[in-house]
Amino acid sequence: MLVLVANLGSTSFKYRLFDMSDERCLARGAVDRIGDPMSHCEVEIGDWKDERSMPVADHGVAVAACLEQLTNPEHGVLKDASEVAAIGFKAVHGGRLSGVFVVDDNVLDAMGEMNAAAPAHNPPYIAAMKLLRERFPDLPLIAAFETDFHQTVPAPRREYAIPREWADGFHIRRYGFHGASHRFIAGRAAEVLGCNDARVISCHLGGSSSLTAIVGGKSVMTTMGMTPQTGLPQNNRVGDFDPFALPLIIEKTGLTLDEVLRKLASEGGLLGLSDRSGDMRDLEEAAAAGDEKSQLALDAFVEEVRRHMGGMIVAMGGVDAIVFTGGIGEKGKDVRKNVCANLEELGIVVDVDANDAIKGEGSFHATGSRTQLLVIPTNEEVIVARQCVERLQDPRNPG
Amino acid sequence: MLVLVANLGSTSFKYRLFDMSDERCLARGAVDRIGDPMSHCEVEIGDWKDERSMPVADHGVAVAACLEQLTNPEHGVLKDASEVAAIGFKAVHGGRLSGVFVVDDNVLDAMGEMNAAAPAHNPPYIAAMKLLRERFPDLPLIAAFETDFHQTVPAPRREYAIPREWADGFHIRRYGFHGASHRFIAGRAAEVLGCNDARVISCHLGGSSSLTAIVGGKSVMTTMGMTPQTGLPQNNRVGDFDPFALPLIIEKTGLTLDEVLRKLASEGGLLGLSDRSGDMRDLEEAAAAGDEKSQLALDAFVEEVRRHMGGMIVAMGGVDAIVFTGGIGEKGKDVRKNVCANLEELGIVVDVDANDAIKGEGSFHATGSRTQLLVIPTNEEVIVARQCVERLQDPRNPG
Repeated sequence: MLVLVANLGSTSFKYRLFDMSDERCLARGAVDRIGDPMSHCEVEIGDWKDERSMPVADHGVAVAACLEQLTNPEHGVLKDASEVAAIGFKAVHGGRLSGVFVVDDNVLDAMGEMNAAAPAHNPPYIAAMKLLRERFPDLPLIAAFETDFHQTVPAPRREYAIPREWADGFHIRRYGFHGASHRFIAGRAAEVLGCNDARVISCHLGGSSSLTAIVGGKSVMTTMGMTPQTGLPQNNRVGDFDPFALPLIIEKTGLTLDEVLRKLASEGGLLGLSDRSGDMRDLEEAAAAGDEKSQLALDAFVEEVRRHMGGMIVAMGGVDAIVFTGGIGEKGKDVRKNVCANLEELGIVVDVDANDAIKGEGSFHATGSRTQLLVIPTNEEVIVARQCVERLQDPRNPG
Repeated sequence: MLVLVANLGSTSFKYRLFDMSDERCLARGAVDRIGDPMSHCEVEIGDWKDERSMPVADHGVAVAACLEQLTNPEHGVLKDASEVAAIGFKAVHGGRLSGVFVVDDNVLDAMGEMNAAAPAHNPPYIAAMKLLRERFPDLPLIAAFETDFHQTVPAPRREYAIPREWADGFHIRRYGFHGASHRFIAGRAAEVLGCNDARVISCHLGGSSSLTAIVGGKSVMTTMGMTPQTGLPQNNRVGDFDPFALPLIIEKTGLTLDEVLRKLASEGGLLGLSDRSGDMRDLEEAAAAGDEKSQLALDAFVEEVRRHMGGMIVAMGGVDAIVFTGGIGEKGKDVRKNVCANLEELGIVVDVDANDAIKGEGSFHATGSRTQLLVIPTNEEVIVARQCVERLQDPRNPG
């Protein structure tokens, strides 16, 4: 079965094509600047790479362009576009719907109800999905919600201390996100540890970051809440913040609530702390050159990771492995070292040389560390592809 | 030196009178239902208790009534009201001002700037202080801000990941509160432990709750943020919540932002979770009788205390003592037991019988527990009284 996994932005379409008989990635590609007079389309199939500029009016045209490249007579991996069994989407927020669904009106409605909670993510997905349903009526579109993996979080860690009628009536609770990544880490960590019931903290650190505590392969706690804006500071999103500070900001700036929230979600995070950049590499460079605010941003990020990590260690009564993944988790050796520093009393001991040397998958705990410290490159797309196969093959849900 | 320490509500005035030569509490009293046609005034001086009903129009009249009771010719402890050297206030939020100050226009202005952040606390204090300044011009009023103890929290744990111009321009950062209580615990814990550089977590759990991590007697991390609404769920206040859920609540309810926040600060917390009561004793009773939402509230409270406690353990690289105080901390033996449960791997081991038996000050860690578990009744008033004396005696600040 061939599955195309799509990653949508409001003006971009990235994808990977998987052969699920062996989970091999046959091709990957991207279309950028959708809607501009001229868009950029690229595809990589093995060693062959095709790049072209062409007008791509919308996401429907983008998918058509991608299918055309994939069926290229000489280098393509498809004889016919109909070989693609489904397009899978890492959908963000379905509110009352959390799981894996063939996209229908009910799914689109559920996503629409959460537009206010995920304004950067849900509206472009809904628009693209509607268009693709019209344009490719025979191709199943499958939404694998980011919140799905966290459905196992127990109620006392899931519910906010808000009036019950709001919690129940408006589906307001801690959902958690990055589900595909944390699910992949849960599976791969169990293989690496040779143990299915380990207590693991998955640290997905990148442009967007979250931690998840995993026991026996299941999420039991996660840092993001009702929306992907909370938890750790993100590249340009605020992370945990005090809602009762909002009236003061509104009073002082004259902005509306929506405008204040938009700024918190686009000029906050590492960018807000540093007043310079949301990119960890820029900050490390500037801090090394003596920029105090950049150092503050780096330190605050590490402190927040440690704070949430501590909460998870206590929740699980200990931790068998801490896994780092995502752009910063995989490449940020200083972040990893600082996050794990000074925890010898808790049985967490870093091997600094091993940490510096890691490329790809590896470990960096010292001999005698009770907790294993691992780096595992994540693979969210293969998780979505697997979920699509399961969904299509589930006899209870013929789609 | 005699100091009157006042605790103000919008319609109440509670106080204790201290003789600071030996920190003895000479008298305590309260005036309730200020502004009603008939108010209730009571005072306790040793074994003598005086209760009376009389009209008390405002806080100025309340203080006059209190001074009259304290100068009662037969049982009073004062020959003349002028013996009182100062009235000290546990003031909540001074924003840009954090410390101990003789109340002047600048102090009142600073508090006024934070009205939006502490709407339940600051306005009644400001009103009462203004009145008392007029009515008792020769009596120094001293504001000891709740945020003062937390000025030692390092910047990376203090700053929010918001645009710098908002953080710096509007004084928006994690302030922390309950400073007098945590300061008292820091001092008393050092005496009990016989050690000035211990790593302590002070758990002030009551109608309003917060945790503070203390190293060498100084606050290094605390759970409340810009406002006393964040951190742990309170009796009827929400605690940590996702600001980006607010537009959804506003959209669904038709309420304004201020109305939504007011409900979160009055119908949230344990009350919101349980849909029944914000009182821990009611919840324990209802949960024992099988009420699921009351059990949820109890469990969520314990989980949040554990989550924040874990963050502090990692921040300090370990913990030498965990101290419980406040109404729930001192009397809630089940809460204490559950907060400390299942942490043997971290060196925290409960002696359940000792925990059950504690009355007043005591310890409940098992033999072999690396961390000491203590109950210490707090005394916020004596801290404020001490701060008043220091303030009055500080030669740099003649007041």
